[in-house]
Amino acid sequence: MYFFRNDYSEGALPQVMEALGRTNLCATAGYGMDPYCREAAEKLKVRFACPDADVHFLVGGTQTNQTALSAFLRPWEAVIAAETAHIATHETGAIEAAGHKVCTVPSPDGKLRPEQIRAVAAAHTDEHMVLPRLVYLSNSTELGTIYSRRELQAISQVCRELGLYLYLDGARLAQALTCAESRLRPEDLPDLCDAFYLGGTKNGLLFGEALFILRDSLKPGFRHAIKQRGGMLAKGRLLGLQFSTVMDDDLWLAAGRHANELAARLSQGLRDLGYPLLAASPTNQVFPVLPDALTARLAQDFSFEHWGKPDADHTAIRLVTSWATRPEAVDALLSALRP
Amino acid sequence: MYFFRNDYSEGALPQVMEALGRTNLCATAGYGMDPYCREAAEKLKVRFACPDADVHFLVGGTQTNQTALSAFLRPWEAVIAAETAHIATHETGAIEAAGHKVCTVPSPDGKLRPEQIRAVAAAHTDEHMVLPRLVYLSNSTELGTIYSRRELQAISQVCRELGLYLYLDGARLAQALTCAESRLRPEDLPDLCDAFYLGGTKNGLLFGEALFILRDSLKPGFRHAIKQRGGMLAKGRLLGLQFSTVMDDDLWLAAGRHANELAARLSQGLRDLGYPLLAASPTNQVFPVLPDALTARLAQDFSFEHWGKPDADHTAIRLVTSWATRPEAVDALLSALRP
Amino acid sequence: MYFFRNDYSEGALPQVMEALGRTNLCATAGYGMDPYCREAAEKLKVRFACPDADVHFLVGGTQTNQTALSAFLRPWEAVIAAETAHIATHETGAIEAAGHKVCTVPSPDGKLRPEQIRAVAAAHTDEHMVLPRLVYLSNSTELGTIYSRRELQAISQVCRELGLYLYLDGARLAQALTCAESRLRPEDLPDLCDAFYLGGTKNGLLFGEALFILRDSLKPGFRHAIKQRGGMLAKGRLLGLQFSTVMDDDLWLAAGRHANELAARLSQGLRDLGYPLLAASPTNQVFPVLPDALTARLAQDFSFEHWGKPDADHTAIRLVTSWATRPEAVDALLSALRP
Amino acid sequence: MYFFRNDYSEGALPQVMEALGRTNLCATAGYGMDPYCREAAEKLKVRFACPDADVHFLVGGTQTNQTALSAFLRPWEAVIAAETAHIATHETGAIEAAGHKVCTVPSPDGKLRPEQIRAVAAAHTDEHMVLPRLVYLSNSTELGTIYSRRELQAISQVCRELGLYLYLDGARLAQALTCAESRLRPEDLPDLCDAFYLGGTKNGLLFGEALFILRDSLKPGFRHAIKQRGGMLAKGRLLGLQFSTVMDDDLWLAAGRHANELAARLSQGLRDLGYPLLAASPTNQVFPVLPDALTARLAQDFSFEHWGKPDADHTAIRLVTSWATRPEAVDALLSALRP
Repeated sequence: MYFFRNDYSEGALPQVMEALGRTNLCATAGYGMDPYCREAAEKLKVRFACPDADVHFLVGGTQTNQTALSAFLRPWEAVIAAETAHIATHETGAIEAAGHKVCTVPSPDGKLRPEQIRAVAAAHTDEHMVLPRLVYLSNSTELGTIYSRRELQAISQVCRELGLYLYLDGARLAQALTCAESRLRPEDLPDLCDAFYLGGTKNGLLFGEALFILRDSLKPGFRHAIKQRGGMLAKGRLLGLQFSTVMDDDLWLAAGRHANELAARLSQGLRDLGYPLLAASPTNQVFPVLPDALTARLAQDFSFEHWGKPDADHTAIRLVTSWATRPEAVDALLSALRP
Repeated sequence: MYFFRNDYSEGALPQVMEALGRTNLCATAGYGMDPYCREAAEKLKVRFACPDADVHFLVGGTQTNQTALSAFLRPWEAVIAAETAHIATHETGAIEAAGHKVCTVPSPDGKLRPEQIRAVAAAHTDEHMVLPRLVYLSNSTELGTIYSRRELQAISQVCRELGLYLYLDGARLAQALTCAESRLRPEDLPDLCDAFYLGGTKNGLLFGEALFILRDSLKPGFRHAIKQRGGMLAKGRLLGLQFSTVMDDDLWLAAGRHANELAARLSQGLRDLGYPLLAASPTNQVFPVLPDALTARLAQDFSFEHWGKPDADHTAIRLVTSWATRPEAVDALLSALRP
Repeated sequence: MYFFRNDYSEGALPQVMEALGRTNLCATAGYGMDPYCREAAEKLKVRFACPDADVHFLVGGTQTNQTALSAFLRPWEAVIAAETAHIATHETGAIEAAGHKVCTVPSPDGKLRPEQIRAVAAAHTDEHMVLPRLVYLSNSTELGTIYSRRELQAISQVCRELGLYLYLDGARLAQALTCAESRLRPEDLPDLCDAFYLGGTKNGLLFGEALFILRDSLKPGFRHAIKQRGGMLAKGRLLGLQFSTVMDDDLWLAAGRHANELAARLSQGLRDLGYPLLAASPTNQVFPVLPDALTARLAQDFSFEHWGKPDADHTAIRLVTSWATRPEAVDALLSALRP
Repeated sequence: MYFFRNDYSEGALPQVMEALGRTNLCATAGYGMDPYCREAAEKLKVRFACPDADVHFLVGGTQTNQTALSAFLRPWEAVIAAETAHIATHETGAIEAAGHKVCTVPSPDGKLRPEQIRAVAAAHTDEHMVLPRLVYLSNSTELGTIYSRRELQAISQVCRELGLYLYLDGARLAQALTCAESRLRPEDLPDLCDAFYLGGTKNGLLFGEALFILRDSLKPGFRHAIKQRGGMLAKGRLLGLQFSTVMDDDLWLAAGRHANELAARLSQGLRDLGYPLLAASPTNQVFPVLPDALTARLAQDFSFEHWGKPDADHTAIRLVTSWATRPEAVDALLSALRP
């Protein structure tokens, strides 16, 4: 069985496993107050060129989104997001569970547009409605698409103009930064966002997300927020050590690039075979539309997710590559799709 | 520097690390729907003799407590706990953050008594007050003390009589079960409790807690609850694999026993040296009272927590042993305390 | 200035004011445990033919919706509603503030369809998504439209089939029941709904909503829920007395009918004058589309709400009649609109 | 049956009822945006000498406390209160339901001391604990006692020093200000508190509390908070009109004074008869300790609350006087207690 189900099917990059083994018996303080976390935070702030950022390490993406958004917002403040946003679809209402409405707008490609942000803000006129206060983006998006640097700049400008926080969910940020089309660089993000996170879970760590808080007013009390929401890992060192490891030699970018390259090979192969793609994704998620019979046959040897039914006879599936995907797996899949 | 600060200063038991390395590149489904989790749940249900329990794996203790209690209770229902309870002191109000009041009662030794439970229940008489509905115990307690089997039976009986759920926080359950004084067996717990968890973080896992839900009415929807509170680990396999590993040959009990034995050696040594202990703990937390000057000197070579100031010239400190504590460390500490 | 802004611009029906004055110095128990509340609940249960219902009195609609829905749902359960629903648009995210997502579907006329309910339920397939559990309807709707008895029956049947609670917001239930088109009778509602409320605020009371809970499993603890959300009026007698008063001689229905009749006169007049209506409302809200210049001129002597801009030169306005609207006001308005 | 059960057993002061009747058919904007509310806010700001305060009208005390505290605090921030505080005992955990822990300290007389505030603040040292951020007082307290001006000043100073907000629950503020012992004046409060409310429900209004927010940073968004928590009364004019009425000629103070005077007569009579009082209350709540048999007999003709059982044979009861209590009722009660 070849896995194209997601980018968190395996454990971790060998360098990460090696580091965990090497330091296993070193004793440190708990809860992220250890040297590994300090070192990782330093490396991250250097790489993203934001010496004044607060960097926090959390275990997973839903936890990071929920903790950050609920710490940043007052009770009546709301989030603006694409209707495809992870927080709107696949986090079991975690943001609402923390008390905040997510105002969604349609988005066929998973991206939010400046004019949509303006429209939501303008539609909320008085105290009988929530007050939109934070824009949530994911990059790459849930459909594998990316925001160009220019697009992010335009959104960032609208946010500043309207007094909205800009928060970027970077569960797959490495993939976004390393895809061929991208002009975005790590050091661009601190200028554009009020907070963002760099995902580790979907890019070769056992688990872990590194949250950057740029805006000063959002910094105080955040460790209280993490602890209160159950996100403060006792052996926080595991988070620091993993991030510290992948920051060396830009190993995190290499892992993202590997995933993208295999996805590109997959996309090209699918196109060559004449299968349409649901969205034109330059990153590590590919959404081919296949005849139902073929989908069923494919499922015997390959693990993947069903994404939708564009018509009665076809299924859109999601194929995800990762740091762990081998070229042979891609070739096997393309081979299986050959008539 | 010798660490007696806590029982989560190091990584994991060698067997756990070995298993993680061995399976690192195996691909599995995410979110705990993998064979390792299934296997671990089976082993746990066998060892605790509760074939009908639901077993869930979570990352940490605060997360487990918050997720379980908020899933079990209606909005106006409250918790009864000792004032020393972890949920009342060191979880940043996580239970209140989930909407529920914690009704605390005094407890010099960290234990709750049946008559205290009765008193709290009786004092809440109408709809202007919260409705106490769940009793929270930790075993071993935050002061290292334990509940005997008979004590737990008495509490369980009161809970049934009053229609209260009994929830046991087993962050240090292995230590409670393996201390010399204990008559409690793993297989006793399912009969006594409506839910309880077996802690891994403080007993040799990188992280992880295994929650058992016994009462049928509390079972539905719990995976929704985990996801909504950000506790569903993408690579859930890490939890299953670790628990599966330590269930073999009762490795979890051996780890707890080791911690207790070194703590007993420490306690005996302290008593021999004439230092009073704050609480008579039969498990892996020891609370000696030392002159302030000695405390300061000790801190140069040993890492530990300050617990309180019984008088102007003395400090109570907490010394914690674990699966990773070496006898030499205990000897070095006792040696440093010798006049 | 003539008021067509809403149906809560004035105080209360003269009978209500008389009753309040008459009983002002009678002393009673507080918090709704008084004879007036008992009497009112009895009358309501008789009139709606539901002797086993629990009836609770609350002060306002948002409070009633928030208290009921948060008491009925588990944390991960969600609401299905039309995108025009009051809870989705004009309650400042009160349902989300209580932790629950509102899943909305498009509705040009403010009504929800059985197939939309089915579609939302079917789209929520696993624990990564909220679990839709309650259907929220308003009748009459926010656009003045109503559900026929047959439509409600179809929705109720879908809810039962899918295990969803059916909750009806009756802020303007009297108006829905008394409009010419309606075949729905008060005694139909208990069979169709799990809970519903009869609004008083928008039908001639100073304030007050009467919530009926029909489903037994939703009844326990509800007074705790009211108190916890700040909705338990100290002088609860005011609620009981007002409802008791308007239940006599079906005064509540007469008040609703009056509002509808004046709205019908208004609609007819507007149609006769050639102004299009945004929605064909048979109840006490009328939405004419007027040229902008005329809208501005009208605002000098009449108070009303702007509802939207169908095109660059026109404004849709909302005209609301009530128990307090006089025929002269309607005539004055129509007169002002005459070319 | 004479009522000494509470101070909200009857309707409203005749002047209030008259005003409601007189203005019943005047049409106004809803939700507190009407001339009566504006006028009342002006009068309140003049009387309390705080021209820059924000004044909001809410329906009840629990609602006011919950709305204010949850609007003022970040998620991890907590409240310091006496263990007798209304928010800690008789509001069904409304503050916890809004996510915040209430840290209580013992208080035999219902009052909080500066050193208790310091101690709670000092005990919360890191992110594993909540962060105490707001001090809650009630004046008069739940035991009828009052804070002197000097006591309030000392508390206010501690709050400023420690960066804590000071919030005063004035459900019975009129009674506190008018009792013989009081040196506190209305115009003192804005200097001492960050927010406080003047209660109407327990002082002759049908319902209503007037919240003053003094600290600028706590002002923004508060109308959103009111609406989101279901506290925004559609016919908000009822609140404004009532407060406007009782501010004239200091009718509110006269009502409080009347209650106090009858309570003093009651206290004196009880003392003369040799019955001990649980607390020395200078305001309108009196707590005599009576033999059980006498308590039972008394209950046949008088309505009151049981407060506690100081010993096996005696009951402490609560007797409350109000604007509506007649001297004959007091005399009848004393007469019934005569041997």
